[in-house]
Amino acid sequence: MSEILDRVAAVIDSRKGADPSTSYVAKLFDKGLDAILKKVGEEATETVMAAKDGDAKKVVYEVADLWFHSMIALSHFGLKPDDVLAELARREGLSGLAEFAARNQAQQQQ
Amino acid sequence: MSEILDRVAAVIDSRKGADPSTSYVAKLFDKGLDAILKKVGEEATETVMAAKDGDAKKVVYEVADLWFHSMIALSHFGLKPDDVLAELARREGLSGLAEFAARNQAQQQQ
Amino acid sequence: MSEILDRVAAVIDSRKGADPSTSYVAKLFDKGLDAILKKVGEEATETVMAAKDGDAKKVVYEVADLWFHSMIALSHFGLKPDDVLAELARREGLSGLAEFAARNQAQQQQ
Amino acid sequence: MSEILDRVAAVIDSRKGADPSTSYVAKLFDKGLDAILKKVGEEATETVMAAKDGDAKKVVYEVADLWFHSMIALSHFGLKPDDVLAELARREGLSGLAEFAARNQAQQQQ
Repeated sequence: MSEILDRVAAVIDSRKGADPSTSYVAKLFDKGLDAILKKVGEEATETVMAAKDGDAKKVVYEVADLWFHSMIALSHFGLKPDDVLAELARREGLSGLAEFAARNQAQQQQ
Repeated sequence: MSEILDRVAAVIDSRKGADPSTSYVAKLFDKGLDAILKKVGEEATETVMAAKDGDAKKVVYEVADLWFHSMIALSHFGLKPDDVLAELARREGLSGLAEFAARNQAQQQQ
Repeated sequence: MSEILDRVAAVIDSRKGADPSTSYVAKLFDKGLDAILKKVGEEATETVMAAKDGDAKKVVYEVADLWFHSMIALSHFGLKPDDVLAELARREGLSGLAEFAARNQAQQQQ
Repeated sequence: MSEILDRVAAVIDSRKGADPSTSYVAKLFDKGLDAILKKVGEEATETVMAAKDGDAKKVVYEVADLWFHSMIALSHFGLKPDDVLAELARREGLSGLAEFAARNQAQQQQ
């Protein structure tokens, strides 16, 4: 499962500068950053609506749309999903430390 | 890099039903779905603003926030990042077929 | 200037249940609440982007779009712009009182 | 009812450059444009959620929040609600003409 983000990112990157008529992503890159960001906002709203409907299948679908369009925005800046994963890993580390600190503090207060 | 989504999802899942005072995620789960979705909308707006600033580092940071809060929404529905990755993989397959079809069509029109 | 919201609301209301092919608003009502709300989210994102561009003319245009689509959402629920204005008036009253209280408190602390 | 937007806009304008500790709006102006726009995005999401709940009273409340924060964004650019109303009036005129044209065209096709 793990390599799918890289594969999707590679497909997205390959669409940069391609003939807009050849694919949805090439067309979006051709329209420019505002068009990409508009889609990020749109898919966030659709994720919220799917969740309010309590429709788990639609939530998966809309989050996939949201992540996909975030990855197009990343690609616009020459960034990769790995940059986001590294940031999440960094925070997980921080959070681990933060919770260790919190646990310690709690023990001291006992 | 690949296992980080699973690790973050495991941390998120472990916060469900935990004492709200012990962590940010536990508090968000305790507040309920609307609070989670509000954050998804908020982080999408912040991603848009970071991108408009042309600040790549901030884009990474905000997309990490967006994905993180999407994962809390997924967890609310008992879903996992792998469900989203499977949906992205499914589309990549479809897209491969779609482009194969498009190529074929183009060749026939020559 | 004041009557324009009422006039726009009357036009919007007249489109409810009309043949979807006759106007943009009739088509949006026909698509249903999710389509209307998707537009509200979209126009909010476009307002944010226009403001980040520092383009005052575009900000006016996008806020007009945002208010217009909010009014379609209001109409879906049988509500009117006057309901929103009454809520704003109510808060302005509260805020007047709140500030009076704050001023009083400040004087007492001197 | 009609003058309420002007009155609220006057209150908002009076908060520009004021001591951030004296009011919510002064604090938001002090934080700057991104903080204002974040609120516009947030209130749009809350409007969507209130509408999905089918809660008309909450819809009025959230649209009031959305319009209020749009008016803070307008004020940031030295704009007024009247600028938005003029744009809506302009479109209503265009739409009147557009529909007149459409009616005419329909009659000619009979």
